[in-house]
Amino acid sequence: MFDSVTVIGATGRSGSAVSARLRQRGLRLLEHDAELFVLCVPDRAVAEVARRIEPGPWICHVSGATPLAALDPHERRFSVHPLQTLVKWRGPEQLDGAFGAVTAATDEAKERGFWLARTLGLQPFELAEEGRVLYHAGAMFASGFLVTLHQAAASLLERAGAPPAGLVPLMTRTIENGFELTGPISRGDWATMDAHLAAIRERKPELDPLYRALAEATAT
Amino acid sequence: MFDSVTVIGATGRSGSAVSARLRQRGLRLLEHDAELFVLCVPDRAVAEVARRIEPGPWICHVSGATPLAALDPHERRFSVHPLQTLVKWRGPEQLDGAFGAVTAATDEAKERGFWLARTLGLQPFELAEEGRVLYHAGAMFASGFLVTLHQAAASLLERAGAPPAGLVPLMTRTIENGFELTGPISRGDWATMDAHLAAIRERKPELDPLYRALAEATAT
Repeated sequence: MFDSVTVIGATGRSGSAVSARLRQRGLRLLEHDAELFVLCVPDRAVAEVARRIEPGPWICHVSGATPLAALDPHERRFSVHPLQTLVKWRGPEQLDGAFGAVTAATDEAKERGFWLARTLGLQPFELAEEGRVLYHAGAMFASGFLVTLHQAAASLLERAGAPPAGLVPLMTRTIENGFELTGPISRGDWATMDAHLAAIRERKPELDPLYRALAEATAT
Repeated sequence: MFDSVTVIGATGRSGSAVSARLRQRGLRLLEHDAELFVLCVPDRAVAEVARRIEPGPWICHVSGATPLAALDPHERRFSVHPLQTLVKWRGPEQLDGAFGAVTAATDEAKERGFWLARTLGLQPFELAEEGRVLYHAGAMFASGFLVTLHQAAASLLERAGAPPAGLVPLMTRTIENGFELTGPISRGDWATMDAHLAAIRERKPELDPLYRALAEATAT
């Protein structure tokens, strides 16, 4: 569908994985004048970078929450957001098996978005423009706030004199078990929950609001 | 160290994994009169079950938050808590590699606790009696509240028209990456965070308190 691509921001976290994968797939990566421009730049830079590109080639961005309109004045445009946490110390294989959100306003653009997602190794799905911010908030719950949750749990174990490393097999298996709930909540064991809250208030009070918000969200 | 064990509650979630593993390791599982009693009963039943056992053999419970004193009047006692979410549809292999919290008041008891933990396949660590409730609260953050976090994320993706299945590779990799933070928080991208909050308030307002508590805990 495309033979040549220009990746802008190819040294960043998403850009390095994206450009390495496209090269692996045999695409020609050009400095300019490619058939497709892929913008792997910070969210707030997308609009400015897009405006500096002469209209003509296809253009896409890989940002989760940024609207298609940020690619103005280009009309041949779409977005592919890898639903994955990408790090510099892994290669293009980190895209494999992740889902990819494709947003496009025309069938022609959608077809190209799905092609790019699949070429990257992603499982594409269509995401409506108006759902992007809510979708991206969900991704943040799943990744950024997972880091927060782990930090909170690790700080409790440390305070109790237990090794935080023990949380890794527990959290991994919770996912592997399809998020099947075990422990006090699943048993309706409110006495244990109350004891938790009392211990947190006494020895780690800064986690009190988070504990209560999570307990409340769990109960509803 | 022990040749025979009586597991009470052997059909429950922890009891079935524990008894299957002890049998695998060549221990004799007896209905009664064993050298060691392992109580795999609900937290609130530990004290009552312990009182009904004639003093003499060693006794232990596998509960996370329950104190050793629940094993009164027994003095040869300890606790081994597998830091793992255990389900009925997996076997004893689910204990492998998990950590095990050993609480004991004497060296003799501690030695037996470490032996039992290792025999079960756990990596033992010592946990002081007074740290148990805080430790168990940490375990709940890591497992029970991970289920809550996933539910919240999945509900946002559903509302946005995106497949919640896409969260699994994302959450798994977040753990595999050692909880390295990526996304808007790591970039200090408050504009995106504000957009998330606005979208949640408009389309999924019940998650507003949780989002704010998590964002606050992340910032501190």
